[in-house]
Amino acid sequence: MDSNTLARLVITCADRPGIVAAVTSFLFAHEANITELDQHSTDARGGRFFMRVEFQTDKLSLTPVELQQAFGAQVGERFEMDWHLHFAAKRLRMAVLVSKHDHAALELLWRWQRGELPVDIPCVISNHPDLGAAVAAFGIPFVHVPFTADTQVQAEAQIRAQLGDVDFVVLARYMRVLSADFVAAFPNRIINIHHSFLPAFAGGDPYRQAQLRGVKIIGATAHYVTAELDQGPIIEQDVVRVTHRHELDDLKGLGRDLERQVLARAVRWHVEDRVLVDGNKTVVFA
Amino acid sequence: MDSNTLARLVITCADRPGIVAAVTSFLFAHEANITELDQHSTDARGGRFFMRVEFQTDKLSLTPVELQQAFGAQVGERFEMDWHLHFAAKRLRMAVLVSKHDHAALELLWRWQRGELPVDIPCVISNHPDLGAAVAAFGIPFVHVPFTADTQVQAEAQIRAQLGDVDFVVLARYMRVLSADFVAAFPNRIINIHHSFLPAFAGGDPYRQAQLRGVKIIGATAHYVTAELDQGPIIEQDVVRVTHRHELDDLKGLGRDLERQVLARAVRWHVEDRVLVDGNKTVVFA
Amino acid sequence: MDSNTLARLVITCADRPGIVAAVTSFLFAHEANITELDQHSTDARGGRFFMRVEFQTDKLSLTPVELQQAFGAQVGERFEMDWHLHFAAKRLRMAVLVSKHDHAALELLWRWQRGELPVDIPCVISNHPDLGAAVAAFGIPFVHVPFTADTQVQAEAQIRAQLGDVDFVVLARYMRVLSADFVAAFPNRIINIHHSFLPAFAGGDPYRQAQLRGVKIIGATAHYVTAELDQGPIIEQDVVRVTHRHELDDLKGLGRDLERQVLARAVRWHVEDRVLVDGNKTVVFA
Amino acid sequence: MDSNTLARLVITCADRPGIVAAVTSFLFAHEANITELDQHSTDARGGRFFMRVEFQTDKLSLTPVELQQAFGAQVGERFEMDWHLHFAAKRLRMAVLVSKHDHAALELLWRWQRGELPVDIPCVISNHPDLGAAVAAFGIPFVHVPFTADTQVQAEAQIRAQLGDVDFVVLARYMRVLSADFVAAFPNRIINIHHSFLPAFAGGDPYRQAQLRGVKIIGATAHYVTAELDQGPIIEQDVVRVTHRHELDDLKGLGRDLERQVLARAVRWHVEDRVLVDGNKTVVFA
Repeated sequence: MDSNTLARLVITCADRPGIVAAVTSFLFAHEANITELDQHSTDARGGRFFMRVEFQTDKLSLTPVELQQAFGAQVGERFEMDWHLHFAAKRLRMAVLVSKHDHAALELLWRWQRGELPVDIPCVISNHPDLGAAVAAFGIPFVHVPFTADTQVQAEAQIRAQLGDVDFVVLARYMRVLSADFVAAFPNRIINIHHSFLPAFAGGDPYRQAQLRGVKIIGATAHYVTAELDQGPIIEQDVVRVTHRHELDDLKGLGRDLERQVLARAVRWHVEDRVLVDGNKTVVFA
Repeated sequence: MDSNTLARLVITCADRPGIVAAVTSFLFAHEANITELDQHSTDARGGRFFMRVEFQTDKLSLTPVELQQAFGAQVGERFEMDWHLHFAAKRLRMAVLVSKHDHAALELLWRWQRGELPVDIPCVISNHPDLGAAVAAFGIPFVHVPFTADTQVQAEAQIRAQLGDVDFVVLARYMRVLSADFVAAFPNRIINIHHSFLPAFAGGDPYRQAQLRGVKIIGATAHYVTAELDQGPIIEQDVVRVTHRHELDDLKGLGRDLERQVLARAVRWHVEDRVLVDGNKTVVFA
Repeated sequence: MDSNTLARLVITCADRPGIVAAVTSFLFAHEANITELDQHSTDARGGRFFMRVEFQTDKLSLTPVELQQAFGAQVGERFEMDWHLHFAAKRLRMAVLVSKHDHAALELLWRWQRGELPVDIPCVISNHPDLGAAVAAFGIPFVHVPFTADTQVQAEAQIRAQLGDVDFVVLARYMRVLSADFVAAFPNRIINIHHSFLPAFAGGDPYRQAQLRGVKIIGATAHYVTAELDQGPIIEQDVVRVTHRHELDDLKGLGRDLERQVLARAVRWHVEDRVLVDGNKTVVFA
Repeated sequence: MDSNTLARLVITCADRPGIVAAVTSFLFAHEANITELDQHSTDARGGRFFMRVEFQTDKLSLTPVELQQAFGAQVGERFEMDWHLHFAAKRLRMAVLVSKHDHAALELLWRWQRGELPVDIPCVISNHPDLGAAVAAFGIPFVHVPFTADTQVQAEAQIRAQLGDVDFVVLARYMRVLSADFVAAFPNRIINIHHSFLPAFAGGDPYRQAQLRGVKIIGATAHYVTAELDQGPIIEQDVVRVTHRHELDDLKGLGRDLERQVLARAVRWHVEDRVLVDGNKTVVFA
C-alpha cells in the first residue's frame, strides 16, 4: 500500500438500502481504487449504518477538494450521512497529557520515533515536571502545567492554549479529571487509558481494587473520554492472567505492559479512522 | 501417577518459620513419597500460610487412619493448622443443580462419563423438568424440585434432603438465589458459574449488560457461593474477545463455551484439592 | 436476523476496479437488503479479490433461480468470477468421519442437537464400532466401515457410497489417511482437525512431539484436507499454555478441549460460507 | 519482600525421598525464612528433581559464605545435587548483542532504566553501528564489532574479550549465528529471541514463512542457545492472532510487540533464577 496516495472515507447514517452501492459506484466513477471496505449495520431493519473505505487516489479524476464536494453533494446529502474524508498524507496532530507514570506516554513516543505511528506530536503536557528530560530526548516540546483542584480553571485554559488545533488528545495516565467543558471541546477526540477491565474497577486505584477482590485476570481499557468518569465508549481492552502469587506491585508491572499495548492499539486505530462511535459504544473496523 | 495410592494434604495456618520442614519431615519419616508440593505465604512476616502436598502412599509405614492421627498430634496442633488429608481413592460426591440452560451441566456429565472427572454424582436437581431425559441418558438420577419465591423454604428443604451427604454442590446455571441458611450448610462447597467477568456485570442478564456497555471482551467466572450474591471467592475466570458484530445471541453462544470451560476447570481443581480459601479470595495451586 | 430469508453471495476473482460497485448495485436493483459485506484484496494492484455478502431476500424482486441466472449473466461473467449463492434455508449436508476418540465428533453432534449448527447430518462413519451407541443416541445413523492398509480401496468406495451427495465431510479425529482420489472428490470440502499448532508437529502423535520439544504452548488446527498430509489451507487455530508440570495425558486433556472449540468454529464458519480458499491459504470473514 | 535480604537456592538432582525435608530443615535450622518454594519431579519414581527456594536472610545464623559451605557439606553432597545459591543483592551482569532491529534490545534497556530489571549491563554489542546513539542515551557503553562470515573468528574473540565476566548474554535480534565454541562458553547462559512459535518456522525470515503458510496465529520464542540453531531449551513463548488482512509488514509489527514481551519475561525469569534446565527442556517456576 502506498500511504502517500491513501485516503479513507468514513460514514455513519441511518441504514437504508442502497448505501454501499451508492458509495462504491461514486468512488468507481471517479477512479478511486478501493483496497479495503468495511460496513456494519446494527439491525437489518431501521438500524444505524457504519462504513469505512480505504482507497488509492493516484488515478483519481478529481482533486481532493473536488472529491470532497462531489461526495457531499451526490451521496452524503442524499443519505443524510455524517461522514469525513481523510487523506493519509495529511498527518493528524496528537497531543499527549501525562502525569508521573511514564510507560504509556513513552510507548507512544517510541512508536512514533520508529515511524510506526504516523502523527505529528506538537507537545507533551504534564502536571509534573518529572518527564521533561525523557520527552525532550525525542525532540518533542514538553510543557509543565501544574494542575490542582484550586487551579483547574486556569490550568485547563493554559492546556487548551497549548493544544492549539490538535486533532486529538491522548491521556497517557494523566491522573487529573478534566472538566465537562474541556471534554466537550474534543468530542470523541480524547483517548484515555484506564488501568482496569472496565466496567470493573472504575475510579481510583484499580489494581488495589482488583487485588482485594481476588480476580484471576486483570485488564486495561482504552476509551473515549466523556463527561462521566470512565464511562465513555470503549475502543479496546485486553487482559492478562494473575494468580494469588501476584502482589500489588506485580499487578502494576503486568498492568503497565497491558496499558502500553492497549493504548498503542487504540491510538493507531483512531489515527487510521478505524473507530466509529455509536452512542456510548464503538464500531472498530480493525 | 497411580491415583489409587495418591493422597493430598492441604494446610492453612498462620505463617511462621519451620512449617514446610515440619510437614515434609513428618511425611518422609512415614515413607510418604512427595510428588508435588506447593506453598504460598501472603506476607513474608505475619501472613497466612497455605500448602498442598501430593504424595504416594504405597510404602506408607502407617494406615491412613494412623497417618491422620499422627499428623494432627505431631504437626497440626503444633502449628494450629486448619488441615485435611484426602485419599484420592475415596471419590468426592458431587451434586449438580441446574435450571433450563443445559450446557454447563452436560459438560460436567460428559467429562464424568469419559472418566475425566473422578467424582460420584448421586443426583442432578432442577427447578424445571426439561433436562430429565438428557440427564437420565447418563444413568444419573434426575430430581425435579419446583422452586418459586413462595415455595423457597420447602424447596430448599427438599433439595437438602436429596443432597444427603454430598461433599459439594455445583450450580451449573441454576437461576435461583439460595438462602443464607442453605449456603451456610455448605461453606466453600457450593461452586457457581456466573456468566460474566466479575465484578463486572454481577446480577441478572450479564450478556445484555455487556452488550449495552460495549465491552470488547466478555468473560465467565466460577466462584464459591457466599450469602452475598456473586461476591464469593473467585476460583477461575476466562474471557473471549467480541466485536460490534456480535449480537446478544452471539454473546450468549460464545459465553456458553466459556462457561463450560471455566466451570469444568474450577470443579476439577476443587476435586483435586487445589483451591484453598483465603478470606474472600482463593489460592489456587493449579 | 431472519435465517429463513437469509442468503449469501460468495465471490472470488481477479481484482479490478468496480467489482464492489457492480455487485452491490445489482443486489440493490433487485431489492436484496445487504446486512453484512466483507471484501478483501490480496494486493492493491493485480491481486485476487474476495467478497462475501449477506442479504435478506424477503423483498427480492426475483425468484432465487432468476437471481442466480441474472447475477451470472450481468455480473459474474463480466468479472470472470468464481462465485456461488447460498440460500440459508437450504441446509448443508455434513458427514462426520471418526475413529475412537469421541470428543470432537460428539461436540459437533451436541451443538447440532442444540440448534447451534444448522446442518443435516446423514451419517457418522467410523473405522471402529465403539461409538455406535453414543451416535445413535442423537438419532443419527452410525456406519462402521473397517479401514486398514489392505482394505483401503474397498473402504473408501464404501464410504463414498455412504456419503452420497453430502456437501462436506468433517474428519473429527479420523485417524486414517485418505487417498488422493478420495480427497479430490471433495475439493476444499473436507475439514480435518489436527491436534497441533501446524506447521509444528505435523504427522503422528503431536502431543508427544510437543512434550519432547518442551514447548510452552500447545495448539490445534482445523484445515481443509489436500493430497499432502497436514498441509492444506488452515481455517482456524487456537492455543493453550502448558508448563513443565503437564504430563502427556494432561496435554491430551487440554488438547481435547482445544480441538473441540477449534473444530466447532471452523465447521460453523464453513457452513456460513465465511471461508474462502486462496491457494493454500484461507480468507476467513468471521 | 525486601530484595536486599533476599536469597535463592536452586537445586537439580536425581529424585529420591527426603530431599524437600532435608533442604527445608537445613534452612530452618539456620533461621532462613522461606517465602517461596517450588519443586517438581519429572516422575514419581526415578525421575529428576528440581527445586527453587526463596528466603529472607536478615536473621540468618551464618554468613553467606558459611551458609554456602554448610549447605554443600550437609545437603548438597548427600543428594549429589547440582545447586547454586544466589544472594539477590549481588546483581547479575548481562550483556546484550543486537543487529539493526532495535525493539527487543531497547525494551530491555527501558525496563532496566525504570528499575524493573535488576541487572548491571556492562555493554551492548552490535555488528552494525546504527544503534550507537540510542544505547548511549541510556548511559551504557556501545561496542561495534563487525561480524561477517570471513571475520567470524576474530569477531567472536573480540566479543568475548568485551564480555569479560558477564553472567549471561541476551541475543536481542542478533542476526548472526554464533559458533559452537562461543556457545559452549556460556552453557544455558545465552538467551535468544526467535521471531516465531518454535518449532514452527525455525531458521530465516519466519514471518514470511508464516505468511506463506497462512497460519492464523503467529508467535515468538525465547530459548537458551545451544550448538544447534533454534533447537535449545524453550524458556517462554507467546502468540497473537492474525488474519488474511495482515500483510508481511503487519506481521512484523505485531511480532515486534510479542518479541519484546516474551524476551522481557524470559530475561526476568532468568535473573530471578526461575528457569532450570532439564535436558533440552526447561522447568520454569514462574
